[in-house]
Amino acid sequence: MMVRNFIDTNDFTKQEILDIIRLGITLKKCINVGYYPPLLKNKTLGMIFEQTSTRTRVSFETAMAQLGGHAQYLAPGQIQLGVHESIEDTGKVLSRLVDILVARVNRHMTIVDLANSSTIPVINGMSDYNHPTQEIGDVITMVEHLPPGKKLEDCKVVFVGDATQVCASLCFITTKLGMHFVQFGPKGYQLKDHHRSIAEANCKISGGSYLITEDTNEALQDADFVYTDVWYGLYDAELSEKERLAVFYPKYQVNRELIAKANPHVKFMHCLPATRGEEVTDEVLDAPYSIAWDQAGNRLTAMRALLVYLLRPQEDQQYKRDAAKAELDRVLAEIM
Amino acid sequence: MMVRNFIDTNDFTKQEILDIIRLGITLKKCINVGYYPPLLKNKTLGMIFEQTSTRTRVSFETAMAQLGGHAQYLAPGQIQLGVHESIEDTGKVLSRLVDILVARVNRHMTIVDLANSSTIPVINGMSDYNHPTQEIGDVITMVEHLPPGKKLEDCKVVFVGDATQVCASLCFITTKLGMHFVQFGPKGYQLKDHHRSIAEANCKISGGSYLITEDTNEALQDADFVYTDVWYGLYDAELSEKERLAVFYPKYQVNRELIAKANPHVKFMHCLPATRGEEVTDEVLDAPYSIAWDQAGNRLTAMRALLVYLLRPQEDQQYKRDAAKAELDRVLAEIM
Amino acid sequence: MMVRNFIDTNDFTKQEILDIIRLGITLKKCINVGYYPPLLKNKTLGMIFEQTSTRTRVSFETAMAQLGGHAQYLAPGQIQLGVHESIEDTGKVLSRLVDILVARVNRHMTIVDLANSSTIPVINGMSDYNHPTQEIGDVITMVEHLPPGKKLEDCKVVFVGDATQVCASLCFITTKLGMHFVQFGPKGYQLKDHHRSIAEANCKISGGSYLITEDTNEALQDADFVYTDVWYGLYDAELSEKERLAVFYPKYQVNRELIAKANPHVKFMHCLPATRGEEVTDEVLDAPYSIAWDQAGNRLTAMRALLVYLLRPQEDQQYKRDAAKAELDRVLAEIM
Repeated sequence: MMVRNFIDTNDFTKQEILDIIRLGITLKKCINVGYYPPLLKNKTLGMIFEQTSTRTRVSFETAMAQLGGHAQYLAPGQIQLGVHESIEDTGKVLSRLVDILVARVNRHMTIVDLANSSTIPVINGMSDYNHPTQEIGDVITMVEHLPPGKKLEDCKVVFVGDATQVCASLCFITTKLGMHFVQFGPKGYQLKDHHRSIAEANCKISGGSYLITEDTNEALQDADFVYTDVWYGLYDAELSEKERLAVFYPKYQVNRELIAKANPHVKFMHCLPATRGEEVTDEVLDAPYSIAWDQAGNRLTAMRALLVYLLRPQEDQQYKRDAAKAELDRVLAEIM
Repeated sequence: MMVRNFIDTNDFTKQEILDIIRLGITLKKCINVGYYPPLLKNKTLGMIFEQTSTRTRVSFETAMAQLGGHAQYLAPGQIQLGVHESIEDTGKVLSRLVDILVARVNRHMTIVDLANSSTIPVINGMSDYNHPTQEIGDVITMVEHLPPGKKLEDCKVVFVGDATQVCASLCFITTKLGMHFVQFGPKGYQLKDHHRSIAEANCKISGGSYLITEDTNEALQDADFVYTDVWYGLYDAELSEKERLAVFYPKYQVNRELIAKANPHVKFMHCLPATRGEEVTDEVLDAPYSIAWDQAGNRLTAMRALLVYLLRPQEDQQYKRDAAKAELDRVLAEIM
Repeated sequence: MMVRNFIDTNDFTKQEILDIIRLGITLKKCINVGYYPPLLKNKTLGMIFEQTSTRTRVSFETAMAQLGGHAQYLAPGQIQLGVHESIEDTGKVLSRLVDILVARVNRHMTIVDLANSSTIPVINGMSDYNHPTQEIGDVITMVEHLPPGKKLEDCKVVFVGDATQVCASLCFITTKLGMHFVQFGPKGYQLKDHHRSIAEANCKISGGSYLITEDTNEALQDADFVYTDVWYGLYDAELSEKERLAVFYPKYQVNRELIAKANPHVKFMHCLPATRGEEVTDEVLDAPYSIAWDQAGNRLTAMRALLVYLLRPQEDQQYKRDAAKAELDRVLAEIM
């Protein structure tokens, strides 16, 4: 079996991503009616977190349990990648102790190094560069809330605000799938050239489009999904409350006025946690057209699909198992 | 299915509490003979702790594993309720990612808010106000150690010392069940008016009684169970060693002399951890009449019962599960 | 059932250790072909760590999951043995809440006290004195990489460097099994008299030998396995980089030149994590004759064997389980 990692959705074809999404939706249907397919029975996921996490960690742990496996949580500080032991050595060791790894890392290079040194699948649980498990859950949520009569490729998805890694990720997946992506954000807080090159390349293949603009009307017109993320800046670029309000407020706040400029059937999305009253008002986040909570629930939908996809059920080797069991029974009888 | 929380035993009728106790005792018998009923198969418990915990956390995690489910431990600092995200938003999100929640919180309002915003059952794993899972385990222990010829309603239960939340909880459950509760503690460290009102109301229905007194003989006479807790004060009211000894020592120490004033068949209880030599002497804690260790073991008995009770096994929908499985098998065959 | 702890391999006979090793190798074969024997179904392991750990913790947690059980990780600071509660009281309580315990402790006395107060099996997950689970995995790795035509008792095992607890442990198990142990290390960093007494006693029974020397050629000649550990000193004896290089470098570094003095089929071992460029060079650690990664993988092999050995499957009591299940079904029907 060739080992496949999930570091960046740009490593996957459109069809592969659609397969993962379909798998997720199917597994969700199963579990919603009480059928928990034991596809990951006896499998162990190692979860390395360099930062704390609610949604990503809980989703992965629940997904493993629901599918018959187990997840180990290695909290910040419990494994310090590259501190007492090189990342490469940790990857080699953990490859022998668990079946699959997820890591949330401070620096994208860490997850790449970990994947390169591991002989088991490695999943990116968010880096400073991207958040690909979020992407899968987001698209699943869009599929479940498609505007009447539209298919994915017809949809316009508008990200409002700072070019966080979630913004970059949304740009990657929508352009990969042939959708129409807009970042509506101020200069200095827009996606960079290296992001645009990827969007460009994706669109060439998929027929999608992308636009990065400061023009409110151009951005919001006919928007099917409006998406935002926090303003406080991440990693090296943290902004104080005063700084971020000066940059983004009030123009980039998702409030009733901004939503009114979009398509009437528009849905609001947020990766959460939200800073209520900053990037989004209560009125929008709690509105009937807010699908942020379904979106959070689909983190779990995405994790189930990714874990099953990467740990594809093995071919049956029943005769080998029978022989091994017979030998074990003999040994137990002799020594116990 | 209506969602039921377990925030306060005063939200339950006497019969409901007796049902939970009976369920706990029955499940314990099963597991003691090696039958582990898989009543929580595939279910996930999220455990939020704002403070560290030994007994509560370990009991819940073991209970889930023994009944076929899985518990996720969210340690202090890993989810900060109300810090980066409002408690309400966290409740909404976690309701979509796990099946049931327990939280140990600093402020009772936090558990109430969490329950109100969640669409899954929420269990109070201790707050500054009460400790209801402890109550269930305590009564189970009393049932297992009833004085000869007595039933629960005949028993006198004496709490010695500071009016901690464990003291309040013991008052709530005993008066709810029609037992006879005494707090033997110094003025200033006695249950407050709001506790007394609840005890009053409970007794009116149940036929139980309550008494709060500084009189040693009145308190201890005919006591069937003597219970104590630490003196060091909790939350805003921490006491230094010197302060607490001045308040409680020697009058309120549970030692051989104090025990001698109770019923000859008296049993000693403690929620643990104990500060040996302060609120209880080694001689008492390690005596044959000390049931504190059985009591600790019954934390697990209580957790099993509560989890099964709140996640009542669903009605069967086999035909839906069969259809879902068939679709999944088709999808797996196509995409893998 | 008599409870057996695993605190020190010197508490076990050679035959018992060989049984554990055989069990480990058999279980590994089972799992490698996809047969996961559910020997620990419904069992819970409590894992207390006073220090962080990668290999030990992950191995135990995976082992429990693979064999049908569950492991609870009690991280440093979550249970403070001997802080709020005496070690003895914690042992008594946890004995009632889980089925088996492992603890990684700062002081060996802590694990001894914990075992003495517990009524369930207790495993030493490393102390300042020894690291017995490491020993089992190490010997399994040697068995899998025996020199052609040799059996265990023919092998010479050379530990290079500081007399860490891993060095002491390697001395214990090799002399117990009748192998030939050498510590090649500088005066002041050699095994102490109390270690030598144990080695002496072991060799008298087993026919093995031991040698502690500063002579390079005497140490390395005909070595079948060369093993090293970090130089930075542990617990009270930490050494700065400058200090440790002055003591050990270059004479005790395992590099190509040192390896060349050993048997041509020599294998290199390391308990990991390694400080590359200090006690071992990249060239050696990454060489084809380095079995350090297999050795890390065999931590898991060892844990599986120890857990099954100590929690020996119970005799069947099917009729009791049937009766218990019938009663539970009746109670559930009545109260739910």
